[in-house]
Amino acid sequence: MLCVGLDPDPSRLPERMGLTPEGIVAFHRSIIGATADLACAYKPQIAHFAAIGAEAALVESIAAIRELAPHAVVILDAKRGDIGSTAAMYAREAFDRYGADAVTLNPYLGGESLEPFIDRRDRGTVILCRTSNPGAGEIQDWPESDPLYARIARLAVSHWNPHDNLMLVAGATRPSELQRIRELAPDIPLLVPGLGAQGGDLEAVVDAGLDARGWGLVVNSSRAILYAGSGPDFATLARAEALRMRDALRVAAAAVMARRRQAGMGDAGRQVR
Amino acid sequence: MLCVGLDPDPSRLPERMGLTPEGIVAFHRSIIGATADLACAYKPQIAHFAAIGAEAALVESIAAIRELAPHAVVILDAKRGDIGSTAAMYAREAFDRYGADAVTLNPYLGGESLEPFIDRRDRGTVILCRTSNPGAGEIQDWPESDPLYARIARLAVSHWNPHDNLMLVAGATRPSELQRIRELAPDIPLLVPGLGAQGGDLEAVVDAGLDARGWGLVVNSSRAILYAGSGPDFATLARAEALRMRDALRVAAAAVMARRRQAGMGDAGRQVR
Repeated sequence: MLCVGLDPDPSRLPERMGLTPEGIVAFHRSIIGATADLACAYKPQIAHFAAIGAEAALVESIAAIRELAPHAVVILDAKRGDIGSTAAMYAREAFDRYGADAVTLNPYLGGESLEPFIDRRDRGTVILCRTSNPGAGEIQDWPESDPLYARIARLAVSHWNPHDNLMLVAGATRPSELQRIRELAPDIPLLVPGLGAQGGDLEAVVDAGLDARGWGLVVNSSRAILYAGSGPDFATLARAEALRMRDALRVAAAAVMARRRQAGMGDAGRQVR
Repeated sequence: MLCVGLDPDPSRLPERMGLTPEGIVAFHRSIIGATADLACAYKPQIAHFAAIGAEAALVESIAAIRELAPHAVVILDAKRGDIGSTAAMYAREAFDRYGADAVTLNPYLGGESLEPFIDRRDRGTVILCRTSNPGAGEIQDWPESDPLYARIARLAVSHWNPHDNLMLVAGATRPSELQRIRELAPDIPLLVPGLGAQGGDLEAVVDAGLDARGWGLVVNSSRAILYAGSGPDFATLARAEALRMRDALRVAAAAVMARRRQAGMGDAGRQVR
Protein backbone atom coordinates (compact mmCIF):
# COMPACT_ATOMS: atom_id res chain seq x y z
CA MET A 1 0.00 0.00 0.00
CA LEU A 2 2.99 2.34 0.38
CA CYS A 3 4.14 4.66 -2.40
CA VAL A 4 7.34 6.63 -1.83
CA GLY A 5 7.30 10.06 -3.45
CA LEU A 6 10.59 11.31 -4.88
CA ASP A 7 10.49 15.12 -4.53
CA PRO A 8 14.16 16.08 -4.48
CA ASP A 9 14.07 19.47 -2.77
CA PRO A 10 17.67 20.74 -3.16
CA SER A 11 17.49 22.62 0.12
CA ARG A 12 16.69 19.43 2.06
CA LEU A 13 19.04 16.87 0.54
CA PRO A 14 21.60 15.39 2.91
CA GLU A 15 24.70 17.53 3.01
CA ARG A 16 27.06 15.13 1.35
CA MET A 17 24.72 14.81 -1.65
CA GLY A 18 25.32 18.37 -2.80
CA LEU A 19 22.97 20.13 -5.17
CA THR A 20 23.97 18.52 -8.45
CA PRO A 21 21.90 16.20 -10.65
CA GLU A 22 24.41 13.47 -9.75
CA GLY A 23 23.73 14.18 -6.08
CA ILE A 24 19.98 13.79 -6.62
CA VAL A 25 20.43 10.45 -8.37
CA ALA A 26 22.75 9.20 -5.61
CA PHE A 27 20.20 10.33 -3.01
CA HIS A 28 17.39 8.50 -4.82
CA ARG A 29 19.47 5.34 -5.22
CA SER A 30 20.00 5.31 -1.45
CA ILE A 31 16.31 5.93 -0.71
CA ILE A 32 15.10 3.32 -3.20
CA GLY A 33 17.63 0.75 -2.01
CA ALA A 34 16.54 1.34 1.59
CA THR A 35 12.80 1.04 0.90
CA ALA A 36 12.54 -1.39 -2.05
CA ASP A 37 10.96 -4.21 -0.01
CA LEU A 38 8.47 -1.83 1.62
CA ALA A 39 7.06 0.13 -1.34
CA CYS A 40 4.67 -1.00 -4.07
CA ALA A 41 5.26 2.21 -6.04
CA TYR A 42 7.55 5.21 -6.41
CA LYS A 43 6.25 8.59 -7.46
CA PRO A 44 8.91 10.94 -8.87
CA GLN A 45 7.65 14.56 -9.03
CA ILE A 46 8.79 16.01 -12.33
CA ALA A 47 8.86 19.73 -11.35
CA HIS A 48 11.75 19.14 -8.99
CA PHE A 49 13.84 17.92 -11.91
CA ALA A 50 12.51 20.36 -14.51
CA ALA A 51 13.20 23.42 -12.33
CA ILE A 52 16.93 22.77 -12.47
CA GLY A 53 17.18 21.23 -15.93
CA ALA A 54 17.82 17.78 -14.49
CA GLU A 55 15.77 15.64 -16.89
CA ALA A 56 18.70 13.21 -17.08
CA ALA A 57 18.52 12.77 -13.31
CA LEU A 58 14.84 11.85 -13.64
CA VAL A 59 15.70 9.25 -16.28
CA GLU A 60 18.41 7.85 -14.02
CA SER A 61 16.16 7.89 -10.95
CA ILE A 62 13.55 5.85 -12.82
CA ALA A 63 16.27 3.48 -14.02
CA ALA A 64 17.29 3.08 -10.37
CA ILE A 65 13.71 2.08 -9.47
CA ARG A 66 13.72 -0.52 -12.27
CA GLU A 67 17.05 -1.88 -11.06
CA LEU A 68 16.59 -1.81 -7.29
CA ALA A 69 12.80 -2.29 -6.98
CA PRO A 70 11.79 -4.10 -10.18
CA HIS A 71 8.37 -5.03 -8.74
CA ALA A 72 7.43 -1.38 -8.09
CA VAL A 73 5.13 0.75 -10.23
CA VAL A 74 6.54 4.10 -11.40
CA ILE A 75 3.96 6.89 -11.15
CA LEU A 76 5.22 10.08 -12.78
CA ASP A 77 3.68 12.97 -10.87
CA ALA A 78 3.27 15.60 -13.59
CA LYS A 79 -0.38 16.72 -13.26
CA ARG A 80 -0.52 17.37 -16.99
CA GLY A 81 -3.66 18.55 -18.73
CA ASP A 82 -3.94 19.66 -22.35
CA ILE A 83 -5.82 18.93 -25.55
CA GLY A 84 -5.44 17.09 -28.83
CA SER A 85 -1.94 16.76 -30.22
CA THR A 86 -0.50 18.49 -27.15
CA ALA A 87 -2.02 15.92 -24.79
CA ALA A 88 -0.54 13.23 -27.05
CA MET A 89 2.88 14.89 -26.63
CA TYR A 90 2.53 14.82 -22.85
CA ALA A 91 1.59 11.13 -23.01
CA ARG A 92 4.73 10.57 -25.06
CA GLU A 93 6.77 12.49 -22.48
CA ALA A 94 5.49 10.40 -19.56
CA PHE A 95 5.20 6.96 -21.12
CA ASP A 96 7.86 6.89 -23.84
CA ARG A 97 10.55 9.37 -22.83
CA TYR A 98 10.46 8.49 -19.13
CA GLY A 99 8.87 5.04 -19.43
CA ALA A 100 6.51 5.65 -16.50
CA ASP A 101 3.87 3.02 -15.74
CA ALA A 102 1.37 5.73 -14.78
CA VAL A 103 1.07 9.52 -14.78
CA THR A 104 -0.99 12.00 -12.78
CA LEU A 105 -3.36 14.23 -14.78
CA ASN A 106 -5.48 17.31 -14.13
CA PRO A 107 -9.09 16.90 -15.35
CA TYR A 108 -9.97 20.59 -15.88
CA LEU A 109 -10.04 20.25 -19.69
CA GLY A 110 -12.54 17.37 -19.63
CA GLY A 111 -12.48 13.68 -20.48
CA GLU A 112 -11.38 14.41 -24.03
CA SER A 113 -8.03 15.64 -22.70
CA LEU A 114 -7.44 12.31 -20.93
CA GLU A 115 -7.90 10.11 -23.99
CA PRO A 116 -4.31 9.98 -25.31
CA PHE A 117 -3.31 8.67 -21.88
CA ILE A 118 -6.23 6.32 -21.24
CA ASP A 119 -5.83 4.82 -24.71
CA ARG A 120 -2.46 3.49 -23.60
CA ARG A 121 -4.02 0.35 -22.14
CA ASP A 122 -0.76 -0.95 -20.74
CA ARG A 123 -0.31 2.22 -18.65
CA GLY A 124 -2.19 3.86 -15.82
CA THR A 125 -3.78 7.29 -15.64
CA VAL A 126 -4.19 8.92 -12.23
CA ILE A 127 -6.75 11.74 -12.24
CA LEU A 128 -6.80 14.50 -9.63
CA CYS A 129 -10.14 14.29 -7.82
CA ARG A 130 -9.83 15.83 -4.33
CA THR A 131 -6.32 17.06 -3.61
CA SER A 132 -4.84 17.41 -0.13
CA ASN A 133 -3.85 21.09 -0.14
CA PRO A 134 -5.71 23.53 2.14
CA GLY A 135 -6.88 25.70 -0.78
CA ALA A 136 -8.27 22.85 -2.90
CA GLY A 137 -11.83 23.28 -1.67
CA GLU A 138 -12.18 26.66 -3.37
CA ILE A 139 -12.58 24.78 -6.67
CA GLN A 140 -13.02 21.09 -5.87
CA ASP A 141 -15.64 21.38 -3.09
CA TRP A 142 -17.74 23.75 -5.14
CA PRO A 143 -20.73 23.91 -5.50
CA GLU A 144 -21.59 22.76 -1.99
CA SER A 145 -24.70 20.89 -3.11
CA ASP A 146 -22.75 18.65 -5.51
CA PRO A 147 -19.05 19.37 -5.43
CA LEU A 148 -16.75 19.12 -8.42
CA TYR A 149 -14.66 16.34 -6.87
CA ALA A 150 -17.79 14.15 -6.66
CA ARG A 151 -18.52 14.88 -10.31
CA ILE A 152 -14.99 13.77 -11.23
CA ALA A 153 -15.49 10.52 -9.29
CA ARG A 154 -18.78 9.88 -11.11
CA LEU A 155 -17.21 10.58 -14.50
CA ALA A 156 -14.38 8.20 -13.60
CA VAL A 157 -16.84 5.34 -13.17
CA SER A 158 -18.85 6.19 -16.28
CA HIS A 159 -17.31 7.02 -19.66
CA TRP A 160 -13.83 8.13 -18.56
CA ASN A 161 -12.58 4.61 -17.84
CA PRO A 162 -13.29 2.30 -20.81
CA HIS A 163 -10.11 0.28 -20.35
CA ASP A 164 -10.13 0.02 -16.56
CA ASN A 165 -6.75 1.73 -16.20
CA LEU A 166 -7.76 4.77 -14.15
CA MET A 167 -6.90 5.79 -10.60
CA LEU A 168 -8.10 8.80 -8.62
CA VAL A 169 -6.13 11.11 -6.33
CA ALA A 170 -7.97 11.57 -3.04
CA GLY A 171 -6.17 13.53 -0.34
CA ALA A 172 -5.76 12.11 3.16
CA THR A 173 -6.45 15.43 4.81
CA ARG A 174 -10.24 15.09 4.39
CA PRO A 175 -11.32 11.49 5.19
CA SER A 176 -15.02 12.33 4.76
CA GLU A 177 -14.40 13.35 1.16
CA LEU A 178 -12.19 10.32 0.63
CA GLN A 179 -15.09 8.20 1.85
CA ARG A 180 -17.53 9.86 -0.52
CA ILE A 181 -15.14 9.23 -3.43
CA ARG A 182 -14.88 5.56 -2.39
CA GLU A 183 -18.70 5.33 -2.33
CA LEU A 184 -19.03 6.91 -5.77
CA ALA A 185 -16.18 4.88 -7.28
CA PRO A 186 -16.20 1.58 -5.37
CA ASP A 187 -13.74 -0.24 -7.64
CA ILE A 188 -11.26 2.47 -8.65
CA PRO A 189 -7.87 2.41 -6.95
CA LEU A 190 -7.12 5.57 -4.98
CA LEU A 191 -3.77 7.31 -4.69
CA VAL A 192 -3.76 9.13 -1.36
CA PRO A 193 -1.24 11.88 -0.62
CA GLY A 194 -1.12 13.99 2.50
CA LEU A 195 -0.65 11.42 5.25
CA GLY A 196 2.94 12.15 6.25
CA ALA A 197 4.14 15.72 6.42
CA GLN A 198 0.64 17.04 5.66
CA GLY A 199 -0.72 15.17 8.69
CA GLY A 200 -3.78 13.12 7.72
CA ASP A 201 -5.27 10.57 10.16
CA LEU A 202 -4.01 7.14 9.07
CA GLU A 203 -6.73 4.83 10.36
CA ALA A 204 -9.56 7.10 9.20
CA VAL A 205 -7.93 7.21 5.76
CA VAL A 206 -7.58 3.43 5.53
CA ASP A 207 -11.17 2.93 6.66
CA ALA A 208 -12.48 5.47 4.16
CA GLY A 209 -10.31 4.33 1.26
CA LEU A 210 -10.12 0.53 1.25
CA ASP A 211 -12.47 -1.07 -1.25
CA ALA A 212 -14.82 -3.96 -0.41
CA ARG A 213 -12.04 -6.52 -0.88
CA GLY A 214 -9.61 -4.60 1.32
CA TRP A 215 -7.60 -3.35 -1.66
CA GLY A 216 -7.55 -0.31 -3.92
CA LEU A 217 -5.54 2.03 -1.73
CA VAL A 218 -2.05 3.37 -2.40
CA VAL A 219 -0.81 5.84 0.22
CA ASN A 220 1.95 8.21 -0.77
CA SER A 221 4.56 9.60 1.56
CA SER A 222 7.29 11.86 0.24
CA ARG A 223 8.96 14.25 2.64
CA ALA A 224 8.37 12.23 5.84
CA ILE A 225 10.48 9.41 4.35
CA LEU A 226 12.94 11.34 2.16
CA TYR A 227 13.92 13.79 4.85
CA ALA A 228 13.58 11.55 7.93
CA GLY A 229 17.25 12.34 8.49
CA SER A 230 19.79 14.70 7.01
CA GLY A 231 23.01 13.19 8.31
CA PRO A 232 25.00 10.23 6.97
CA ASP A 233 22.33 7.84 8.36
CA PHE A 234 19.54 9.40 6.28
CA ALA A 235 18.83 6.14 4.40
CA THR A 236 18.55 4.13 7.62
CA LEU A 237 16.14 6.73 9.02
CA ALA A 238 14.18 6.78 5.73
CA ARG A 239 13.83 3.00 5.94
CA ALA A 240 12.69 3.21 9.56
CA GLU A 241 10.00 5.75 8.63
CA ALA A 242 8.89 3.71 5.58
CA LEU A 243 8.72 0.58 7.74
CA ARG A 244 6.72 2.41 10.42
CA MET A 245 4.30 3.66 7.78
CA ARG A 246 4.02 0.32 5.95
CA ASP A 247 3.32 -1.48 9.25
CA ALA A 248 0.85 1.17 10.42
CA LEU A 249 -1.01 0.79 7.12
CA ARG A 250 -1.05 -3.03 7.48
CA VAL A 251 -2.29 -2.88 11.07
CA ALA A 252 -4.96 -0.33 10.17
CA ALA A 253 -6.08 -2.35 7.14
CA ALA A 254 -6.31 -5.55 9.21
CA ALA A 255 -8.30 -3.76 11.91
CA VAL A 256 -10.64 -2.15 9.38
CA MET A 257 -11.30 -5.42 7.55
CA ALA A 258 -11.83 -7.29 10.83
CA ARG A 259 -14.32 -4.64 11.92
CA ARG A 260 -16.10 -4.84 8.58
CA ARG A 261 -16.31 -8.65 8.78
CA GLN A 262 -17.66 -8.34 12.30
CA ALA A 263 -20.25 -5.80 11.20
CA GLY A 264 -21.09 -7.98 8.18
CA MET A 265 -21.47 -11.06 10.39
CA GLY A 266 -23.50 -9.02 12.80
CA ASP A 267 -25.80 -7.96 9.97
CA ALA A 268 -25.96 -11.53 8.69
CA GLY A 269 -26.64 -12.73 12.23
CA ARG A 270 -29.42 -10.20 12.66
CA GLN A 271 -30.82 -11.16 9.26
CA VAL A 272 -30.85 -14.84 10.27
CA ARG A 273 -32.52 -14.00 13.53
CA MET B 1 -3.28 41.57 -30.62
CA LEU B 2 -1.66 38.59 -32.36
CA CYS B 3 0.18 35.86 -30.47
CA VAL B 4 1.98 33.21 -32.51
CA GLY B 5 1.94 29.78 -30.87
CA LEU B 6 5.05 27.66 -31.33
CA ASP B 7 3.83 24.03 -31.29
CA PRO B 8 6.54 22.20 -33.23
CA ASP B 9 4.70 19.06 -34.37
CA PRO B 10 7.50 16.92 -35.86
CA SER B 11 5.13 15.38 -38.41
CA ARG B 12 4.26 18.80 -39.83
CA LEU B 13 7.59 20.58 -39.98
CA PRO B 14 8.79 21.54 -43.47
CA GLU B 15 10.70 18.68 -45.02
CA ARG B 16 14.09 20.31 -45.07
CA MET B 17 13.86 20.97 -41.32
CA GLY B 18 14.09 17.30 -40.43
CA LEU B 19 13.03 16.01 -37.06
CA THR B 20 15.98 17.09 -34.94
CA PRO B 21 16.05 19.68 -32.15
CA GLU B 22 18.29 21.76 -34.45
CA GLY B 23 15.58 21.51 -37.13
CA ILE B 24 12.95 22.78 -34.69
CA VAL B 25 15.09 25.76 -33.71
CA ALA B 26 15.81 26.61 -37.36
CA PHE B 27 12.07 26.35 -38.10
CA HIS B 28 11.23 28.69 -35.21
CA ARG B 29 13.90 31.19 -36.22
CA SER B 30 12.33 31.35 -39.68
CA ILE B 31 8.79 31.74 -38.30
CA ILE B 32 9.81 34.37 -35.72
CA GLY B 33 11.84 36.30 -38.29
CA ALA B 34 8.90 36.27 -40.68
CA THR B 35 6.32 37.43 -38.12
CA ALA B 36 8.29 39.64 -35.70
CA ASP B 37 6.64 42.91 -36.76
CA LEU B 38 3.15 41.34 -36.63
CA ALA B 39 3.12 39.59 -33.25
CA CYS B 40 2.91 41.06 -29.76
CA ALA B 41 3.64 37.68 -28.18
CA TYR B 42 4.94 34.19 -28.86
CA LYS B 43 3.61 31.16 -27.03
CA PRO B 44 5.91 28.13 -27.09
CA GLN B 45 4.08 24.95 -26.03
CA ILE B 46 6.40 22.99 -23.74
CA ALA B 47 4.99 19.47 -24.33
CA HIS B 48 6.21 19.48 -27.91
CA PHE B 49 9.76 19.93 -26.65
CA ALA B 50 9.47 17.71 -23.57
CA ALA B 51 8.10 14.75 -25.55
CA ILE B 52 11.34 14.44 -27.48
CA GLY B 53 13.78 15.59 -24.82
CA ALA B 54 14.39 18.89 -26.62
CA GLU B 55 14.57 21.29 -23.65
CA ALA B 56 17.64 22.89 -25.23
CA ALA B 57 15.59 23.65 -28.36
CA LEU B 58 13.02 25.43 -26.17
CA VAL B 59 15.77 27.52 -24.58
CA GLU B 60 17.12 28.37 -28.05
CA SER B 61 13.65 29.12 -29.43
CA ILE B 62 13.04 31.59 -26.61
CA ALA B 63 16.48 33.13 -27.23
CA ALA B 64 15.46 33.52 -30.88
CA ILE B 65 12.33 35.44 -29.80
CA ARG B 66 14.47 37.75 -27.63
CA GLU B 67 16.87 38.33 -30.52
CA LEU B 68 14.47 38.66 -33.46
CA ALA B 69 11.36 40.07 -31.73
CA PRO B 70 12.70 41.84 -28.63
CA HIS B 71 9.41 43.70 -28.10
CA ALA B 72 7.38 40.46 -27.87
CA VAL B 73 6.14 38.81 -24.69
CA VAL B 74 7.06 35.14 -24.20
CA ILE B 75 4.15 33.11 -22.83
CA LEU B 76 5.25 29.60 -21.89
CA ASP B 77 2.25 27.33 -22.46
CA ALA B 78 2.72 24.69 -19.77
CA LYS B 79 -0.69 24.54 -18.02
CA ARG B 80 1.02 23.67 -14.75
CA GLY B 81 -0.88 23.19 -11.53
CA ASP B 82 0.54 21.93 -8.25
CA ILE B 83 0.91 22.87 -4.60
CA GLY B 84 3.43 24.30 -2.16
CA SER B 85 7.07 23.64 -2.89
CA THR B 86 6.17 21.83 -6.12
CA ALA B 87 4.32 24.87 -7.48
CA ALA B 88 7.39 26.92 -6.58
CA MET B 89 9.52 24.51 -8.62
CA TYR B 90 7.23 24.93 -11.64
CA ALA B 91 7.49 28.73 -11.26
CA ARG B 92 11.26 28.33 -11.24
CA GLU B 93 11.06 26.16 -14.38
CA ALA B 94 8.97 28.71 -16.31
CA PHE B 95 10.44 32.00 -15.09
CA ASP B 96 14.06 31.19 -14.23
CA ARG B 97 15.08 28.21 -16.31
CA TYR B 98 13.25 29.36 -19.46
CA GLY B 99 12.99 33.06 -18.61
CA ALA B 100 9.37 33.27 -19.77
CA ASP B 101 7.48 36.52 -19.19
CA ALA B 102 4.28 34.61 -18.47
CA VAL B 103 3.10 31.02 -18.03
CA THR B 104 -0.27 29.29 -18.44
CA LEU B 105 -1.67 27.57 -15.32
CA ASN B 106 -4.50 25.20 -14.51
CA PRO B 107 -6.66 26.40 -11.58
CA TYR B 108 -8.02 23.00 -10.40
CA LEU B 109 -5.96 23.08 -7.17
CA GLY B 110 -7.28 26.48 -6.11
CA GLY B 111 -5.87 29.96 -5.71
CA GLU B 112 -3.26 28.72 -3.23
CA SER B 113 -1.58 26.80 -6.07
CA LEU B 114 -1.21 29.99 -8.11
CA GLU B 115 0.61 32.00 -5.44
CA PRO B 116 4.25 31.15 -6.26
CA PHE B 117 3.54 32.42 -9.79
CA ILE B 118 1.43 35.46 -8.94
CA ASP B 119 3.98 36.54 -6.34
CA ARG B 120 6.44 37.08 -9.18
CA ARG B 121 5.19 40.60 -9.79
CA ASP B 122 7.41 41.15 -12.82
CA ARG B 123 5.86 38.14 -14.57
CA GLY B 124 2.43 37.22 -15.84
CA THR B 125 0.19 34.32 -14.88
CA VAL B 126 -2.36 33.11 -17.41
CA ILE B 127 -5.14 31.02 -15.84
CA LEU B 128 -7.27 28.56 -17.81
CA CYS B 129 -10.86 29.74 -17.57
CA ARG B 130 -12.87 28.42 -20.56
CA THR B 131 -10.71 26.40 -22.95
CA SER B 132 -11.47 25.95 -26.65
CA ASN B 133 -11.59 22.15 -26.90
CA PRO B 134 -14.92 20.44 -27.66
CA GLY B 135 -14.85 18.41 -24.41
CA ALA B 136 -14.13 21.35 -22.08
CA GLY B 137 -17.77 21.91 -21.19
CA GLU B 138 -17.98 18.62 -19.32
CA ILE B 139 -16.09 20.30 -16.46
CA GLN B 140 -15.93 24.03 -17.17
CA ASP B 141 -19.62 24.59 -18.10
CA TRP B 142 -20.81 22.69 -15.07
CA PRO B 143 -23.06 23.24 -13.19
CA GLU B 144 -25.34 24.82 -15.77
CA SER B 145 -26.81 27.32 -13.30
CA ASP B 146 -23.39 28.83 -12.47
CA PRO B 147 -20.61 27.22 -14.47
CA LEU B 148 -17.10 26.68 -13.17
CA TYR B 149 -15.54 28.95 -15.80
CA ALA B 150 -17.63 31.86 -14.48
CA ARG B 151 -16.45 31.06 -10.95
CA ILE B 152 -12.85 31.19 -12.14
CA ALA B 153 -13.49 34.60 -13.75
CA ARG B 154 -15.01 35.90 -10.52
CA LEU B 155 -12.10 34.58 -8.44
CA ALA B 156 -9.70 36.24 -10.88
CA VAL B 157 -11.20 39.63 -10.14
CA SER B 158 -11.39 39.10 -6.39
CA HIS B 159 -8.54 37.67 -4.31
CA TRP B 160 -6.59 35.80 -7.02
CA ASN B 161 -5.09 38.94 -8.54
CA PRO B 162 -3.52 41.13 -5.83
CA HIS B 163 -0.66 42.33 -8.07
CA ASP B 164 -2.64 42.85 -11.26
CA ASN B 165 -0.53 40.39 -13.25
CA LEU B 166 -3.20 37.86 -14.20
CA MET B 167 -4.66 36.93 -17.57
CA LEU B 168 -7.43 34.46 -18.38
CA VAL B 169 -7.64 31.90 -21.19
CA ALA B 170 -10.99 32.16 -22.95
CA GLY B 171 -11.45 30.01 -26.05
CA ALA B 172 -12.63 31.54 -29.32
CA THR B 173 -14.92 28.61 -30.10
CA ARG B 174 -17.65 29.88 -27.74
CA PRO B 175 -18.05 33.69 -28.11
CA SER B 176 -21.03 33.76 -25.72
CA GLU B 177 -18.86 32.35 -22.94
CA LEU B 178 -16.04 34.69 -23.88
CA GLN B 179 -18.51 37.56 -23.53
CA ARG B 180 -19.62 36.39 -20.10
CA ILE B 181 -15.99 36.17 -18.98
CA ARG B 182 -15.43 39.74 -20.24
CA GLU B 183 -18.49 40.91 -18.30
CA LEU B 184 -17.32 39.20 -15.10
CA ALA B 185 -13.70 40.35 -15.50
CA PRO B 186 -13.91 43.69 -17.33
CA ASP B 187 -10.26 44.66 -16.87
CA ILE B 188 -8.39 41.35 -17.12
CA PRO B 189 -6.53 40.70 -20.38
CA LEU B 190 -7.77 37.60 -22.21
CA LEU B 191 -5.65 35.11 -24.12
CA VAL B 192 -7.87 33.60 -26.79
CA PRO B 193 -6.90 30.36 -28.56
CA GLY B 194 -8.99 28.51 -31.11
CA LEU B 195 -9.45 31.10 -33.85
CA GLY B 196 -7.28 29.57 -36.55
CA ALA B 197 -7.28 25.82 -37.09
CA GLN B 198 -10.03 25.36 -34.51
CA GLY B 199 -12.30 27.73 -36.46
CA GLY B 200 -13.75 30.40 -34.15
CA ASP B 201 -15.60 33.43 -35.58
CA LEU B 202 -13.15 36.36 -35.58
CA GLU B 203 -15.45 39.37 -35.39
CA ALA B 204 -17.66 37.77 -32.74
CA VAL B 205 -14.56 37.02 -30.70
CA VAL B 206 -13.21 40.56 -30.97
CA ASP B 207 -16.61 42.01 -30.04
CA ALA B 208 -16.94 39.70 -27.06
CA GLY B 209 -13.36 40.03 -25.85
CA LEU B 210 -12.26 43.66 -26.23
CA ASP B 211 -12.43 45.60 -23.00
CA ALA B 212 -14.06 49.03 -22.66
CA ARG B 213 -10.91 50.79 -23.92
CA GLY B 214 -10.61 48.49 -26.94
CA TRP B 215 -7.71 46.56 -25.41
CA GLY B 216 -7.21 43.46 -23.31
CA LEU B 217 -7.35 40.86 -26.06
CA VAL B 218 -4.49 38.64 -27.26
CA VAL B 219 -5.51 36.16 -29.94
CA ASN B 220 -3.33 33.11 -30.41
CA SER B 221 -2.82 31.28 -33.66
CA SER B 222 -0.48 28.32 -33.85
CA ARG B 223 -1.01 25.76 -36.58
CA ALA B 224 -2.68 28.11 -39.11
CA ILE B 225 0.51 30.20 -39.18
CA LEU B 226 3.19 27.56 -38.51
CA TYR B 227 1.93 25.15 -41.14
CA ALA B 228 0.58 27.63 -43.70
CA GLY B 229 3.04 26.00 -46.09
CA SER B 230 5.31 22.98 -46.00
CA GLY B 231 7.58 23.74 -48.96
CA PRO B 232 10.65 25.99 -49.11
CA ASP B 233 8.35 29.07 -49.03
CA PHE B 234 6.81 28.11 -45.66
CA ALA B 235 8.06 31.28 -43.93
CA THR B 236 6.61 33.52 -46.65
CA LEU B 237 3.27 31.73 -46.35
CA ALA B 238 3.42 31.92 -42.54
CA ARG B 239 3.98 35.69 -42.79
CA ALA B 240 1.06 36.01 -45.22
CA GLU B 241 -1.24 34.17 -42.81
CA ALA B 242 -0.01 36.18 -39.80
CA LEU B 243 -0.52 39.41 -41.76
CA ARG B 244 -4.01 38.34 -42.82
CA MET B 245 -4.87 37.52 -39.20
CA ARG B 246 -3.30 40.70 -37.76
CA ASP B 247 -5.18 42.85 -40.29
CA ALA B 248 -8.45 40.99 -39.76
CA LEU B 249 -8.09 41.58 -36.02
CA ARG B 250 -7.38 45.29 -36.58
CA VAL B 251 -10.33 45.72 -38.93
CA ALA B 252 -12.64 43.86 -36.56
CA ALA B 253 -11.43 45.88 -33.57
CA ALA B 254 -11.93 49.18 -35.43
CA ALA B 255 -15.43 48.12 -36.50
CA VAL B 256 -16.36 47.00 -33.01
CA MET B 257 -15.09 50.18 -31.37
CA ALA B 258 -16.81 52.36 -33.99
CA ARG B 259 -20.07 50.50 -33.37
CA ARG B 260 -19.67 50.88 -29.61
CA ARG B 261 -18.99 54.62 -29.94
CA GLN B 262 -22.05 54.94 -32.18
CA ALA B 263 -24.19 53.04 -29.69
CA GLY B 264 -22.72 55.12 -26.84
CA MET B 265 -23.47 58.39 -28.69
CA GLY B 266 -26.94 57.07 -29.42
CA ASP B 267 -27.47 56.36 -25.74
CA ALA B 268 -26.05 59.77 -24.82
CA GLY B 269 -28.29 61.42 -27.41
CA ARG B 270 -31.33 59.70 -25.99
CA GLN B 271 -30.30 60.69 -22.46
CA VAL B 272 -29.97 64.35 -23.50
CA ARG B 273 -33.33 64.25 -25.20
